[in-house]
Amino acid sequence: MNAANSASWMARETAESGDAVARLLDQSGNAIRAAGKLLRDLDPRLVAICARGSSNHAAAFFKYATETQIGLPVVPIGPSIASVYQTPLRLSGTAMLLISQSGRSPDLLAMAKAAQQGGAKIIAFVNDAASPAAEVADLTIPLQAGPEKSVAATKSCIASMAAGLALLADWSRDGVLNSALAELPGALRAAVAADWSEMVAPLVATRSALIIGRGVGYPIAMEAALKLKETASLHAEPYSAAEVLHGPIQIVQKGFPVLLFRQRDAAGDSLDHCAARLANAGAQVFVAGAANGSAKDFTHLPVASSNHPATELISAMVSCYATVDRIARARGFDPDTPPLLKKVTETL
Amino acid sequence: MNAANSASWMARETAESGDAVARLLDQSGNAIRAAGKLLRDLDPRLVAICARGSSNHAAAFFKYATETQIGLPVVPIGPSIASVYQTPLRLSGTAMLLISQSGRSPDLLAMAKAAQQGGAKIIAFVNDAASPAAEVADLTIPLQAGPEKSVAATKSCIASMAAGLALLADWSRDGVLNSALAELPGALRAAVAADWSEMVAPLVATRSALIIGRGVGYPIAMEAALKLKETASLHAEPYSAAEVLHGPIQIVQKGFPVLLFRQRDAAGDSLDHCAARLANAGAQVFVAGAANGSAKDFTHLPVASSNHPATELISAMVSCYATVDRIARARGFDPDTPPLLKKVTETL
Repeated sequence: MNAANSASWMARETAESGDAVARLLDQSGNAIRAAGKLLRDLDPRLVAICARGSSNHAAAFFKYATETQIGLPVVPIGPSIASVYQTPLRLSGTAMLLISQSGRSPDLLAMAKAAQQGGAKIIAFVNDAASPAAEVADLTIPLQAGPEKSVAATKSCIASMAAGLALLADWSRDGVLNSALAELPGALRAAVAADWSEMVAPLVATRSALIIGRGVGYPIAMEAALKLKETASLHAEPYSAAEVLHGPIQIVQKGFPVLLFRQRDAAGDSLDHCAARLANAGAQVFVAGAANGSAKDFTHLPVASSNHPATELISAMVSCYATVDRIARARGFDPDTPPLLKKVTETL
Repeated sequence: MNAANSASWMARETAESGDAVARLLDQSGNAIRAAGKLLRDLDPRLVAICARGSSNHAAAFFKYATETQIGLPVVPIGPSIASVYQTPLRLSGTAMLLISQSGRSPDLLAMAKAAQQGGAKIIAFVNDAASPAAEVADLTIPLQAGPEKSVAATKSCIASMAAGLALLADWSRDGVLNSALAELPGALRAAVAADWSEMVAPLVATRSALIIGRGVGYPIAMEAALKLKETASLHAEPYSAAEVLHGPIQIVQKGFPVLLFRQRDAAGDSLDHCAARLANAGAQVFVAGAANGSAKDFTHLPVASSNHPATELISAMVSCYATVDRIARARGFDPDTPPLLKKVTETL
């Protein structure tokens, strides 16, 4: 780390998210359009997704966006089906979206080959365009995020989420989503500086937290919770707003911190209801986005606008990354080098 | 509660799991065979699943069992896609498995109708055969679990898991799985009394825990974690053995309790590796099943045998329910009546 610059790699790479997405849309635009055409020509009955860790959250983001926008089922398939169980897959006439920042995880490569043998076309999102995954795939979309030094993926995950939306927008000829994506790099540059300070002290002080989303916001909650675990050693668990009230709410005690991602779409009312119920159970609720409901019950966290619920969730993710970095350091951890982790996952 | 019997409803209903599964296989045998024939005739390219809470874990159990045994993709579709987003679904030529103990959740009914309009045949697992879900479905498999008084579902969830395996066994003509199912009621009666005592004190004393599984064991971990949250107010989070080492392991401190479900299948080695890594990071690891590896690192919890990894996981679930009841009461909670919950979920 440069002695003149005490910011963590995580903070600096988070701040590069807007530039990363701008490069993705520019330099990988042809690849995105080729993949959109592949999907239109194939007209699959399902799209499979396969990824791990943060990339798996970007894959889930694509799943919810696709299912809510065009109603096509998107099925997550655990890499273990190929790498451990070695079950032949029945994927004739389908496509599989493989997301891997390194493009080198052995279990993902095993899955890509098994899916191809089962009849699927493979579209790969990789940050390293020279990686083995790019060789296996029928079509590769380079993420263009640039080198990532922090163990905790930030800008590459943001680029994966944006790439999923860009693919969906081209495939389904969704002009509204495409316009929102064009605004996203600017929104992400603003999102880095969004003031989420009020959340820092409560999350520094706690041992446990819940992170809530619904619909396309749920994978964002998954990613926020993972980052809090891996960089801040904080037991943050993601939950769907639909599920948390039926069981998990029992762990909420007075002052228990909850972060809720509240996008402006059809799930908004149920998210507001969920926030109110959690506050009523004693939780200290932070709402990222424009919740309705009694302001005294929640602390509102601003989200940079880009005129689409899905792209605004990506902005919220960037603001969250920047805040998690602060929380991790205040808890005494170096977010760049969690003691037990390494960068390339090699699950078998 | 009967004054002469101080056992909770949760404990008593858990103890009825063997009888419930025996009734399911006997009294719903024809329905299971009809559903198996429906799937063979339809030969779908995917099966969708839709459920909430514990039933969703039974649905995920069906997903992993189906994908590992026959390689057909099984796609979980959130009820919100229909109930909140109202997106028309593209499910022509597919089947959807709907699991609802009450058969009355409005969002699940909305999803069943939307899926039917999208072209899917609906197979419903319901405990109340006179419920609206049974009317909507093309084919209903009554769970035969009998009335369930505890808010925390136990025997009905066990019956749902067994029904999923019975459907898969008939559909795929899997004689080995069918034989194991025939042994399951007896195994479950033994499982109630399996001695998991060593896990009680550490989970009574902790505020936080991880519950680990892989492949078909992962949904079992999900269900165990939910029960610990809702009945014992303990922040237990489920994790795949493949994912937990890449990030979540950072929350493990000296003595942090971990429960790992270790079935005897191709995932066994990776589960043993995971257990060893967690123990090495300081965790106190309880392994349900016959793990290899150094006995001094883990506490082994016995699992009643039924000669198949999937049915043995159901036995482990019953032993876990019985132990969670003890943990909840020792932490000062009545597992039958969590203060913030009610029995029929009515998410919209």
